[in-house]
Amino acid sequence: MALIVQKYGGTSVGTVERIQEVAKKLIKHQQQGDSLVVVLSAMSGETNRLLALANELNDQPRGRELDVLLSTGEQVTIALLCMALEQHGIHATSYTGSQVKILTDNTHNKARIMEIDDNKIRAGLKKGHIVVVAGFQGCDEHGNITTLGRGGSDTTAVAIAAALKADECQIYTDVDGVYTTDPRVVEDARRLDKITFEEMLEMASLGAKVLQIRAVEFASKYNVPLRVLSSFKEGGGTLITAEETKMEQALISGIAFNRDEAKLTILGVPDHPGIASKILGPIAKQNIEVDMIIQNTGHDGTTDFTFTVHRNDYQDSLKILQKIAKELEAREVTGDEKIAKISIVGVGMRSHAGIASTMFKTLADESINISMISTSEIKISVVVDEKYLELGVRSLHKAFELSEVK
Amino acid sequence: MALIVQKYGGTSVGTVERIQEVAKKLIKHQQQGDSLVVVLSAMSGETNRLLALANELNDQPRGRELDVLLSTGEQVTIALLCMALEQHGIHATSYTGSQVKILTDNTHNKARIMEIDDNKIRAGLKKGHIVVVAGFQGCDEHGNITTLGRGGSDTTAVAIAAALKADECQIYTDVDGVYTTDPRVVEDARRLDKITFEEMLEMASLGAKVLQIRAVEFASKYNVPLRVLSSFKEGGGTLITAEETKMEQALISGIAFNRDEAKLTILGVPDHPGIASKILGPIAKQNIEVDMIIQNTGHDGTTDFTFTVHRNDYQDSLKILQKIAKELEAREVTGDEKIAKISIVGVGMRSHAGIASTMFKTLADESINISMISTSEIKISVVVDEKYLELGVRSLHKAFELSEVK
Repeated sequence: MALIVQKYGGTSVGTVERIQEVAKKLIKHQQQGDSLVVVLSAMSGETNRLLALANELNDQPRGRELDVLLSTGEQVTIALLCMALEQHGIHATSYTGSQVKILTDNTHNKARIMEIDDNKIRAGLKKGHIVVVAGFQGCDEHGNITTLGRGGSDTTAVAIAAALKADECQIYTDVDGVYTTDPRVVEDARRLDKITFEEMLEMASLGAKVLQIRAVEFASKYNVPLRVLSSFKEGGGTLITAEETKMEQALISGIAFNRDEAKLTILGVPDHPGIASKILGPIAKQNIEVDMIIQNTGHDGTTDFTFTVHRNDYQDSLKILQKIAKELEAREVTGDEKIAKISIVGVGMRSHAGIASTMFKTLADESINISMISTSEIKISVVVDEKYLELGVRSLHKAFELSEVK
Repeated sequence: MALIVQKYGGTSVGTVERIQEVAKKLIKHQQQGDSLVVVLSAMSGETNRLLALANELNDQPRGRELDVLLSTGEQVTIALLCMALEQHGIHATSYTGSQVKILTDNTHNKARIMEIDDNKIRAGLKKGHIVVVAGFQGCDEHGNITTLGRGGSDTTAVAIAAALKADECQIYTDVDGVYTTDPRVVEDARRLDKITFEEMLEMASLGAKVLQIRAVEFASKYNVPLRVLSSFKEGGGTLITAEETKMEQALISGIAFNRDEAKLTILGVPDHPGIASKILGPIAKQNIEVDMIIQNTGHDGTTDFTFTVHRNDYQDSLKILQKIAKELEAREVTGDEKIAKISIVGVGMRSHAGIASTMFKTLADESINISMISTSEIKISVVVDEKYLELGVRSLHKAFELSEVK
């Protein structure tokens, strides 16, 4: 008998009919002998409805009260799912984050889970109940309601699975797993049966938005096997686990990409120690997040410095950079908002040489010019002209034979 | 500086605009130097919306989960009101029933308040905050969410006022006070400035549905001055307090009436001890509530027994009574569902004779036949043919000069 934590997102519980579908799925699982803890999001649209009400009353609602408001969304779904289960004679008990209790710090709207008291959940399971927990929420040490930020229900599910030492944490969503790349770009993109935590983290942060990064980090830290499945289609989904050294690893697991970036370059800055912080300090001060950073080795005592930001922050960043350039007596500031980033990800590249050169050659064969390169242990990212994004992804997908099962 | 507990009902917080109005009202009160605790209901319509969702999933939802669901209604309004106050720079803090905490027994859907922890409320007031509390809800000793039943927000407000020893508990609603009788029936019905708890209890239970009976009982028990006011109109409302012996009491404070009743009579039952329970026992067993009960002194060893029930229970009661009549070998069963009850209420009648005869004479003068009479210390009720209800109420209102301020 396995202990399974299942999480259903907003679209999976978006209507009364879908809640009934979830109930039926759970009953089937229970009949197979599994013990079930279910974590739910708010019905899709509900959080936005509540936010709209809040914004009519206050243009900048305080975090504490926003959390009191938003946390009602999941409280509604947990009660409704229990009712649906009980209609079929199945015992079920719901718990809000505060009731469990899921203790968090007091950073309203994006709190972090500190500790989970698993007594009530265990007691419910012992009685044979399906235990239904509100995702996305908890409370601080004074009993103030907190929320974990959007998508936090994934994190709730993983944290509960970790606390209970569950056999698996299953995230039901509207996609049926993690793919080698976006199937809208590459037709024969393949669903991965398995992927490591590390690879998933690189894939997620690069735009394959299937799972919350925090949830994957949490699962990795506590070694909770995580599975992404579809609420609407049958299938085994994708299992995300720790790296198994025994297994032959695929070289590359997937290709992530991102067209939301823009790059900025400051040319001919004096090559002094501390120059990077002088450039990036004022950018960070405006809460602009910087992604890739490249500094070339200088000559004639000057250097060129390039970084990428979210495309929405391009204009602001450009203004700041022009001011900095004047102060530093730099030669010139250039920028480009028509760029795209393509990354290949895979733990296999740790033990295999030549991955990078395959990537570069593949792109060169298509006459795609690379303007920036950045690498990590299990990832190589390149920046190219935006118009070559699809071509680049497709050629790489083919070059690394990602549509074939290995 | 007075400590005031104010309660706003569902229509008073039914839209974003109305919540803004409530906020403005509160700010005005605070500027006058009052310390404020505010108790809110759910936005009007919200409870019904949630109930409809529940009923789609379960034809008889379990009390525990229903309470988890319904309690979200007030949680939304308390957060929204705090946001509206904060938009004006006023500090405000919201608390759910569980957070306060308002400890109740575990009778879901109609829990009773056992104890209120006033620490958090007092701490908020001390910091100069307006403290906003969710009405209608609490939690049992295990932290399960409970609700007090419909209209329970009045009770929450009074209970908090009692715990804080507040100077006054103000119930804002859609009427501007308690009237001598229903203004829809008597045009010159007058708003009472003051009424005693006892009178209010008699008025409320008789159909002048301004306040929850439980709330009045609670206020009476803990001697909390209670004021009913309109959310939409200026005015002092009606103050409900303990009887002040110093004051000259009006003879009659008001006239209540009720056309939802039906009467049943069992004629010629053997006049033995225990006969009343033999007749009413089977009625009570079917959860039918009996209001007035009259038994005439018997003759020839038999007696007649009459009682009233809610009109919806008339047919069921009739069937039960016919069965009982057979068993008891009673002569006959009769009934009438076209009746109305009129009651005059006033603490003054304790010390004044002749009230009853004035009532009976007034009705007789209009040729209204009285079919049942029942009296308590501060109330006289009569049952008349339904068609004479308005005429009866109007003549009594005139006879007791209720439209004139005394």
